[in-house]
Amino acid sequence: MWELLDVPIVQAPLSGGPSTPALAAAVSEAGALGFLATGYKTAQDVEADIAAVREQTQRPFGVNVFARPATTTAEPYEDFVAGLAAEADRSGVALGEPRFSDDDYDAKLDVLSRTAPAVASFTFGCPTAWEIAALKGVGSNVWVTVTTPAEAIAARDAGADALVVQGAEAGGHRGAFIDTHEREDIGLLALIALVQAQVDLPLVAAGGIMTGAGIAAVVAAGAKAAALGTAFMRCPEAGTSEPHRKALQTGHRTDLTRAFTGRAARGIVNRWQAEHSPQAPIAYPQIHYVTAPVRAHARQHGDADSINLWAGQAHALGRERPAAELIDELMTEARAARDQLNGGAW
Amino acid sequence: MWELLDVPIVQAPLSGGPSTPALAAAVSEAGALGFLATGYKTAQDVEADIAAVREQTQRPFGVNVFARPATTTAEPYEDFVAGLAAEADRSGVALGEPRFSDDDYDAKLDVLSRTAPAVASFTFGCPTAWEIAALKGVGSNVWVTVTTPAEAIAARDAGADALVVQGAEAGGHRGAFIDTHEREDIGLLALIALVQAQVDLPLVAAGGIMTGAGIAAVVAAGAKAAALGTAFMRCPEAGTSEPHRKALQTGHRTDLTRAFTGRAARGIVNRWQAEHSPQAPIAYPQIHYVTAPVRAHARQHGDADSINLWAGQAHALGRERPAAELIDELMTEARAARDQLNGGAW
Repeated sequence: MWELLDVPIVQAPLSGGPSTPALAAAVSEAGALGFLATGYKTAQDVEADIAAVREQTQRPFGVNVFARPATTTAEPYEDFVAGLAAEADRSGVALGEPRFSDDDYDAKLDVLSRTAPAVASFTFGCPTAWEIAALKGVGSNVWVTVTTPAEAIAARDAGADALVVQGAEAGGHRGAFIDTHEREDIGLLALIALVQAQVDLPLVAAGGIMTGAGIAAVVAAGAKAAALGTAFMRCPEAGTSEPHRKALQTGHRTDLTRAFTGRAARGIVNRWQAEHSPQAPIAYPQIHYVTAPVRAHARQHGDADSINLWAGQAHALGRERPAAELIDELMTEARAARDQLNGGAW
Repeated sequence: MWELLDVPIVQAPLSGGPSTPALAAAVSEAGALGFLATGYKTAQDVEADIAAVREQTQRPFGVNVFARPATTTAEPYEDFVAGLAAEADRSGVALGEPRFSDDDYDAKLDVLSRTAPAVASFTFGCPTAWEIAALKGVGSNVWVTVTTPAEAIAARDAGADALVVQGAEAGGHRGAFIDTHEREDIGLLALIALVQAQVDLPLVAAGGIMTGAGIAAVVAAGAKAAALGTAFMRCPEAGTSEPHRKALQTGHRTDLTRAFTGRAARGIVNRWQAEHSPQAPIAYPQIHYVTAPVRAHARQHGDADSINLWAGQAHALGRERPAAELIDELMTEARAARDQLNGGAW
């Protein structure tokens, strides 16, 4: 698997808009591993996206799927939804209905097994051993996103080929198998060390990496590759919305919030996030569906204060570049960082 | 300065018990940079500690001081203190009086200027330009602990020689200049990159580093050295209390809390931390003085549920070793990590 990558860079999947076949293909063409996100898409659209990537590149790429939730229980969310009425009034768009969905998990597994991407990766949980074996059987390398050593052990025991270790710095949703109030958000370097002490699997390091020095650092720490998400969001090939692109140029602070989806995720703190985070319940994807229509409207109208501005902690270091140029720059920096490490007298 | 270190390891200061002259001397003798913490000590005791280190080693070492607070305002804490009455009853020890103190800042600066340690470092704020110039004048290298790019810029502008960049993973108190509810706790790798983009000063990287791979990683990321605190707490030379030593062997999760001191700090979650964190105000050092007698009593009686169990996020990887042996092991690992980075085909 790893010898297929010319450079130790993986594009994080970026569900919810930024992921496009053009971005995945450009990243893979540049010698890194591009990814398609399938979250919130239909299985049919996912199959079309995979075909679109294959029209643009012969190189390997990955497809990421939201794992079937380990629990369907949610905290009470009626009061929180009632508190969002002013948001609906403000935008003139009705809130959505809270509902549960497994994001068409079975249908997406079918697509994966038919299309056999080089990598099938999962977040929000771990597929069953049977599912992992089936995907391996069609030739895919199966990766599971983990945020704690306990999740890493579970993923290994289920048969994962590799683990995406997601540090607390990462933008977007925490990949935790279950979102709880006792969830520990472990910084990337600490997490790599903790997971390595428990599990002997290849690791892909994700969370706040925006520079070649960061890539070299996680490879020195023991990862096979670095996964960069926010770093690719300002590429012209990405589907990032205009207000989101603008927010990524502000350098504003990020925080974890459940105010948009009912699941902890890191975003740039805007008005919505500041106002609604304290009350937001653990209720995913119910709250996602409640807020989705208002967010879609705000996105179209350039209102950055009413949308989820997912971003990693170092988003201020983002660059507006075609993906291939960005990867070239990052690798020049990574080689310089390697030279610097070699310059030590020890 | 940096050429004085044989290995890129700094011992974090460890105020509140673990810091001893024996630990600082052992670390410096092993080719790293030992540190004396002065927090909560009198200036007289600090001067004696410095003399004690100098009796044990000719090598350079550092002395860390709590900077004069940037603000003396505190949130109301009467209700919180009232809620601690049951803790006093439980232990049979009265709560302390809430009071403000600058931890004898001026007297400690006098000691620093008289004794001129190789490094004078600060946390909780930044000395004035005049103070920094005076310490430089007696030959000390002046380091300031920072947790954000804005603090890094302020420390540079005040004349700091180097910055200790403290990632969110770190055990003990956040070194933020001012503790606020909007404080962003940035993971170490992201913080290094963000600070480097703003400030061209040597960096010492702190937060969750427990392995040689972690040391190699932060040097690859651009730091001159790694600061390790929790990693040294189980050394026989450290003054870590017995219940704290035992807790460090549990692998339990950590979280940030103001429940012991009124300032955000990372500790292993125990009964006290779980019960009192939600209500704890920003009121440092007032709450420190309120809880100190009860904590001292609990520490003596081996009650790990009523003391602050400061620990970084990767504390489960701690080792019980003499400091010199630990440093040897860490450097063997760091060299292996460097070799691994050099093994990449890119």
